[in-house]
Amino acid sequence: MKLIRHGEAGHESPGILRADGSIVDASDEFREFDEGFFACGGLASLRAWVDAGCPGGSTVDSDVRLGPPVARPSKLVCVGKNYVDHAKEFGGGVPDEPVLFMKASTACSGPFDEVVIPPGCDKLDYEVELALIVGRTASRIAASDGLDYVAGYTVMCDYSERAWQKEHCGQWVKGKSADTFAPLGPCMVTTDTLTDPQSLCLWTKVNGEKRQGGWSGNMMFSAAYLVSYISRFMTLLPGDIIATGTPAGVGMGMTPPRFLAPGDQVELGIEGIGSMRQRIISGSS
Amino acid sequence: MKLIRHGEAGHESPGILRADGSIVDASDEFREFDEGFFACGGLASLRAWVDAGCPGGSTVDSDVRLGPPVARPSKLVCVGKNYVDHAKEFGGGVPDEPVLFMKASTACSGPFDEVVIPPGCDKLDYEVELALIVGRTASRIAASDGLDYVAGYTVMCDYSERAWQKEHCGQWVKGKSADTFAPLGPCMVTTDTLTDPQSLCLWTKVNGEKRQGGWSGNMMFSAAYLVSYISRFMTLLPGDIIATGTPAGVGMGMTPPRFLAPGDQVELGIEGIGSMRQRIISGSS
Repeated sequence: MKLIRHGEAGHESPGILRADGSIVDASDEFREFDEGFFACGGLASLRAWVDAGCPGGSTVDSDVRLGPPVARPSKLVCVGKNYVDHAKEFGGGVPDEPVLFMKASTACSGPFDEVVIPPGCDKLDYEVELALIVGRTASRIAASDGLDYVAGYTVMCDYSERAWQKEHCGQWVKGKSADTFAPLGPCMVTTDTLTDPQSLCLWTKVNGEKRQGGWSGNMMFSAAYLVSYISRFMTLLPGDIIATGTPAGVGMGMTPPRFLAPGDQVELGIEGIGSMRQRIISGSS
Repeated sequence: MKLIRHGEAGHESPGILRADGSIVDASDEFREFDEGFFACGGLASLRAWVDAGCPGGSTVDSDVRLGPPVARPSKLVCVGKNYVDHAKEFGGGVPDEPVLFMKASTACSGPFDEVVIPPGCDKLDYEVELALIVGRTASRIAASDGLDYVAGYTVMCDYSERAWQKEHCGQWVKGKSADTFAPLGPCMVTTDTLTDPQSLCLWTKVNGEKRQGGWSGNMMFSAAYLVSYISRFMTLLPGDIIATGTPAGVGMGMTPPRFLAPGDQVELGIEGIGSMRQRIISGSS
């Protein structure tokens, strides 16, 4: 099952992406895909509605804007340096434990929305990541149970302003949290459809040129382990998002570094989920 | 005007703390003190209701549980090393720019709730902080306008597990985000009542012994500047919380360090806002 949200930014409606690529609106049956939806058995109700042929659901124009597939996560937890090749290009060595940081949830945007370079930003970089959507409240859970707490998977680009992340007195959140720095989508694939998060190809192209290519099986810390690990330090709520790290090939790791500029087109995808594309534009000062 | 939220955790109702210490329930007039309340002119409506004598508002038992004065902030942004004396005891020097980090919003708790030591935590520390509550959406605002975006002030204790913050592969969020690690309260004081955030005494006592004493005028970066600075890197939403840093006297800075243990009583306060008290208890493993 593939969940999407369609419509204007801030006013999206829930829907389903069918195998033929068509979109069915689900807003007559479901208010939102948010914390309350996941907490109150929404996915099971949605499955029943889909299995019944989406009664009453109208087809939506296929060129509709898509939003993030989940509304208003209470938090967006990210994992740094989770692929050996990226840890090496980033510098500072391979971590013994997952490195965690947050992005502001206000950074979330749709999978085809423009990415706005904030004034004063000149080291904008991309990072394709497999993102987990938490399905139920998780606190100090066992690694063997980790995937039981996942509702589904989506693609996230962890846009990063490297100077703000690394050159302005510490803590990465500063370079990770600008508006539009967390496109999510194009859909959330449920765990009954995508059963193995460790066997997926991830890729990024910039202006058609392949930049990142990776395999989620090469994560140092698996999706199941990450849910468990993060839940030691904070309580995960339904609808929360965990971004699981990026493989090598980011602009910062090149010699010389190649950062993004206005007009660039960034395409990213994960097999079994889908792809997204963002045009980079300059923000007003 | 002093806003409180009263009732069971997760089911609080909005109310007003009057000058005589009594609490008036405001839930017949106002649904919640949350993002929507601040975004839609709720404070002005509340002011009018209070000026009219809180018509229809019933008095609440004074021993009612208090929750955080604001519900479900989209984010909780914290400032590190914002007092010279604390920066020195923390180590690593005085920053040239504000150090920013996040706490998970799931860490928020009431001002008199117990603080739960998570399993595996043995370096629990306190930090009294002046917290700002954002009143309207702020993105790249000028420092001179910073306080125009503040709805009010409260006290926060930024509880921190120092080993998780500093010894487990980086990024402070890991040691800052456990449930109950962000008690807020006892009330939110509006900016018409508390007009100068830079002239306040802050203090902490542990088991009656004075540990922290500071003066908000000694912040390196003022409240107005911090709102402006943070708004360069992310969009602040109404109801978001900014914790402005702590003065010297934390347990980690002592020789030898003195961390909190089950049974300890931590009292913290800021003049003009009020005080709060938490008992430290051990969490189940």
